[in-house]
Amino acid sequence: MRMYDLIMKKRNGGALSEDEIAFMVKGYTNGEIPDYQMSAMMMAIYFQGMDETETLSLTMAMAKSGDMLDLSEISGVKVDKHSTGGVGDKTSLVLTPMVAALGVPVAKMSGRGLGHTGGTIDKLESFTGFSTVISEEQFKENVNRIGIAIMGQTADLAPADKKLYALRDVTATVDNMSLIASSIMSKKLAAGADAIVLDVKTGSGAFMKTQEESFGLANAMVKIGTGAGRNTVAVVSDMDQPLGFAVGNALEVKEAVATLNGEGPDDLEELCLTLGSYMVVAAKKATDVGEAREMLKKCIEDKSALRKLAEFIEAQGGDKELVYHTDRLPKASMIEEIASPAEGYVQNIVCDEIGICSLILGGGRETKESVIDLSVGLVLHKKVGDYVRQGESLATIHANDREKLNAAKQRFLNAYTINDTPVTKKPLIRGIVTR
Amino acid sequence: MRMYDLIMKKRNGGALSEDEIAFMVKGYTNGEIPDYQMSAMMMAIYFQGMDETETLSLTMAMAKSGDMLDLSEISGVKVDKHSTGGVGDKTSLVLTPMVAALGVPVAKMSGRGLGHTGGTIDKLESFTGFSTVISEEQFKENVNRIGIAIMGQTADLAPADKKLYALRDVTATVDNMSLIASSIMSKKLAAGADAIVLDVKTGSGAFMKTQEESFGLANAMVKIGTGAGRNTVAVVSDMDQPLGFAVGNALEVKEAVATLNGEGPDDLEELCLTLGSYMVVAAKKATDVGEAREMLKKCIEDKSALRKLAEFIEAQGGDKELVYHTDRLPKASMIEEIASPAEGYVQNIVCDEIGICSLILGGGRETKESVIDLSVGLVLHKKVGDYVRQGESLATIHANDREKLNAAKQRFLNAYTINDTPVTKKPLIRGIVTR
Repeated sequence: MRMYDLIMKKRNGGALSEDEIAFMVKGYTNGEIPDYQMSAMMMAIYFQGMDETETLSLTMAMAKSGDMLDLSEISGVKVDKHSTGGVGDKTSLVLTPMVAALGVPVAKMSGRGLGHTGGTIDKLESFTGFSTVISEEQFKENVNRIGIAIMGQTADLAPADKKLYALRDVTATVDNMSLIASSIMSKKLAAGADAIVLDVKTGSGAFMKTQEESFGLANAMVKIGTGAGRNTVAVVSDMDQPLGFAVGNALEVKEAVATLNGEGPDDLEELCLTLGSYMVVAAKKATDVGEAREMLKKCIEDKSALRKLAEFIEAQGGDKELVYHTDRLPKASMIEEIASPAEGYVQNIVCDEIGICSLILGGGRETKESVIDLSVGLVLHKKVGDYVRQGESLATIHANDREKLNAAKQRFLNAYTINDTPVTKKPLIRGIVTR
Repeated sequence: MRMYDLIMKKRNGGALSEDEIAFMVKGYTNGEIPDYQMSAMMMAIYFQGMDETETLSLTMAMAKSGDMLDLSEISGVKVDKHSTGGVGDKTSLVLTPMVAALGVPVAKMSGRGLGHTGGTIDKLESFTGFSTVISEEQFKENVNRIGIAIMGQTADLAPADKKLYALRDVTATVDNMSLIASSIMSKKLAAGADAIVLDVKTGSGAFMKTQEESFGLANAMVKIGTGAGRNTVAVVSDMDQPLGFAVGNALEVKEAVATLNGEGPDDLEELCLTLGSYMVVAAKKATDVGEAREMLKKCIEDKSALRKLAEFIEAQGGDKELVYHTDRLPKASMIEEIASPAEGYVQNIVCDEIGICSLILGGGRETKESVIDLSVGLVLHKKVGDYVRQGESLATIHANDREKLNAAKQRFLNAYTINDTPVTKKPLIRGIVTR
């Protein structure tokens, strides 16, 4: 088999066989196939696409390129949840203790944030002492004992995907649905869960800007997951504006804890109930999503989910008292209001710009090496459709540097469009995709 | 400027500006732009194409990537002739002394053959002592003195094209008209001629198998040449069967000399008269192709073209007596007839297979390092449309190795299709392309 012939075949619109894709992924991972042939192949795929079978083959080949986690020592149906990433997306912080409180084993590998979206691990590090650097044994033991553990990506998960993504990133071959879907799913399959619930974001703060693209990605991923024998569901949810009000690590933790106290933003709670109910059903802890939803509501009301969070934080070395006293979380030195320059309805928020404000303040990583400031960020007071008077606060900004504060403030104001026209709010949940 | 953005622009169907193409070619040649970005770009160009302006910009940027020959010390209008390559194509050997005899300065850079088509330099080396390793000064002096000189590609002509072609060759991005045309023309422009006459072959022995593709390439090259300010004409000619009868280095030289003696094959003579008349007109030695054709016929009749060949061979160290005594050219030890297995009309000859027969016999290069055997090859006796009796000779095979002879013979027989149906011969000249 020669890579040249495979490029030619794909270029001419042919479908690659499972063996051909396995040959290509293996050869590329071990360096036998050079970057320049793989980038030509990626561009050919960009134009000719891949069918469902090819996409599954690619995903499986990439999943198998490194460690395949074996979670069989953990009892129960392991359900993983994955978000395609958004601004103010603290869903995992709320959702994982909720489902764990209902007996769904949460064995999660998480990454750090890069760019304008934050990572779950960064947010969790707001709890003093908390660490995701735990052994695989400790990880499995924790899940079996308290029902929840989160581990940094220490295992060699899907190295082929890592290498291929880096190449696509510099050759303008990222934007292809099959390639995006297989990249995400290869890591999910390698991470070993039995079932996968996907939160596919849509809108200006998401990777997929249009609803059509988001459903396309959701469909592609559900097909891959199902094809690989994992029960897979995708929820397509709004990311045209930040989720909840808080954007920034400790600020988001505070909001997540508030949500577990029954005092969170409506959109965040609703998304957690929706995603959670599919997770609970997948784990066979409820027969339908209606029943699951009631169970989830109850574990907020009775504070069992909150206690689960505290238990989890403690098990991984963190200070569980912070769960009950969020005022002790990291705080910024400058806290100021951003006054609205106009009166009217908030028409639109350029969502990824709000993420970039947090990045400017020091709350995110511009490169992998950046050290992040957990305390900074923004808490919005006005979201799309809200009425605001001139001079009223649009948001509170938390900063530790005057210059950064000013820069972020300016950028924040430019992201808002305010005028007289009343706005019809878009629904949070845009749809559910199952096979 | 970033290569990434240029790939994205082309991928999305945009047209690259002259500056962008110059940036890309320069960066790639000096190693700042990596192979993997360039191969992605080539695949994007494969799918999105390049317009006339982009194609000219690419050609110019590649031409300027190395030495640009200055032939101004040679008086007169310098006309270069280029063939896209075919089997038994000894045109240059006949044509250059013909036009030189009429005072058209021939200052030609030539390459060696690779694969199933032979190179002019290899053929010329059948003349004992002949060498194309001459200095640029000697080269120019010879042209001014005797009107003709041929030099090996010693100058650093279009290194960008060399690097890019090698990359395209392993990434399945060769087959794009703009890229093929710019590759050929970048070297022609760098080689410094004032006018260019192109012989674009079409058929089973040519790079372009269909007449449509051949006219496409001819058009693209004429547009580039004209756009670069060089008077350019293309002749599209048949390569569905070998040109003339002889295939193999010394055998082709013998046939070329016979043609200069007025005893050559009709097709070869006709092609030389056609190409030659455009060269003579381009060099302003005749007012129209009709007049030029008469002049060319005359220089065969009066043997002035033959004498010019002898003069040229001598000037570059070769034994000119071989021009007058071609029986002294290198000869093979085994000379056998290939008997026709059937009676009927020759319907078809798979032309590139005949080239491969010569390659098998040792007359061509499989790799750049191969040493070639000048004496071997084939002389056809039957071409398409000819009637042959069973047992009658289809061709004479010249070999120095029994095993190779047998292998070539078998392959030769497989290339011929013979049956009862009379055949309408296709014309040699398929068309002329001018701007």
